[in-house]
Amino acid sequence: MTEMLSKADLEARLREIGRTRYHSNHPFQIMLQEGRLSKPQVQAWALNRYYYQSMIPVKDAHILARLGSVELRREWRERIIDHDGTETERGGIVKWIALAEGVGLDRDYVMSGKGILPATRFSVDAYVNFVRDRTLLEAIASSLTELFSPNVIGVRTKGMLEHYDFITPETLAYFDKRPVQAKRDSDFALTYCLENARRPEEQQAVIDALTFKCQVLWTQLDALHHAYVEPRHLPFDAWAPDAAQATKAA
Amino acid sequence: MTEMLSKADLEARLREIGRTRYHSNHPFQIMLQEGRLSKPQVQAWALNRYYYQSMIPVKDAHILARLGSVELRREWRERIIDHDGTETERGGIVKWIALAEGVGLDRDYVMSGKGILPATRFSVDAYVNFVRDRTLLEAIASSLTELFSPNVIGVRTKGMLEHYDFITPETLAYFDKRPVQAKRDSDFALTYCLENARRPEEQQAVIDALTFKCQVLWTQLDALHHAYVEPRHLPFDAWAPDAAQATKAA
Repeated sequence: MTEMLSKADLEARLREIGRTRYHSNHPFQIMLQEGRLSKPQVQAWALNRYYYQSMIPVKDAHILARLGSVELRREWRERIIDHDGTETERGGIVKWIALAEGVGLDRDYVMSGKGILPATRFSVDAYVNFVRDRTLLEAIASSLTELFSPNVIGVRTKGMLEHYDFITPETLAYFDKRPVQAKRDSDFALTYCLENARRPEEQQAVIDALTFKCQVLWTQLDALHHAYVEPRHLPFDAWAPDAAQATKAA
Repeated sequence: MTEMLSKADLEARLREIGRTRYHSNHPFQIMLQEGRLSKPQVQAWALNRYYYQSMIPVKDAHILARLGSVELRREWRERIIDHDGTETERGGIVKWIALAEGVGLDRDYVMSGKGILPATRFSVDAYVNFVRDRTLLEAIASSLTELFSPNVIGVRTKGMLEHYDFITPETLAYFDKRPVQAKRDSDFALTYCLENARRPEEQQAVIDALTFKCQVLWTQLDALHHAYVEPRHLPFDAWAPDAAQATKAA
């Protein structure tokens, strides 16, 4: 790309990436929301995604450390509060643990990080390192996947409640506030990127950062698919559906 | 683990990890050496593994920077020379490019890193970051997979020459010197680890570092298997067998 895009054109490019590459298009995600996963497959999803959830405040703290103004930090710290919670309100991480417990996993096992796929760890760590090591603009742009989550959450929550008798609205409480939070956060991040990408190379860097983040999400589902959808290819030490330590006694 | 192992017992533990978890046991690797891959699948392997090969001197430079003595650095720099080559001798990276060209890929495309699987990049980067961020003992221990490569290289080279008519001894020249180099390097690294793991926790860290490295190699083959073995699940932008830019004109 050599020419500067208008803000509207850059935004359109970003939304096109989401339309095609966001993990809502991934076969495993579609199976999840259409009720075509077994309970152990849903458990594997909840277990592995916990690692992603648990690292979100870490990546946001890397951004917080680099924002450089009181106003920007006050805006961005909301994300950390959302995920880590307050004295009176459960945060996203605690709600995800409840989700994992709700589908029958043992809380301590989930929090230990044992049994997650190595590819989950490598993908999530790639995200944290990207946010730490790239420019602030790229770090913020990599959060833009949230532009695409509000719609998807509705479809997924509805599908999961409809198709899985082991899932209740309480189990999915994590998702209740996410659409509003994600809209607020992604509106801010999008405005920031559109205003701060002032050269064609910076616009391309924003596009590439969002593409990278879509890869981070997609790769996690690829790994789940490879390990847990027949024919299963479980790597060593990965949680197996019959692993006694991982599931709560009935 | 709370008790200190004898050096012999620690070595036995490490060799047992190799016997069970080294990527020579991976289904994709077995298919490769038994001639059960198509030419495009071999190309995908060569293309993706180039990224791993290209980062080896980077991870060794991180170790070199931390070794702290002339003697140790003189020992370890051999690895960098082996992979980067000299005025008069081709290094491992150049030989790998020749391997990739030998199986029909375009040299510039291979070197560009385009088309590799995101999971390849995330796994290899996890290795480089591990070596940079963990203790020197763990960094060195993560190289111990080379203990297991000399035997495997013989089997693989023989199998590939036997089964694929598009592969010649010249194509596989990369592997000619690797057994001798790997033996020299892993003898040194093993002695270093056995002598410098002086507490049970350090012995465990050595075991864990080797386990981690086996995951790095295994995860790369999992990703190849998921993307290129039927039913194929190609992620976006990954090299596709019919991609014109990637293969040399016949």
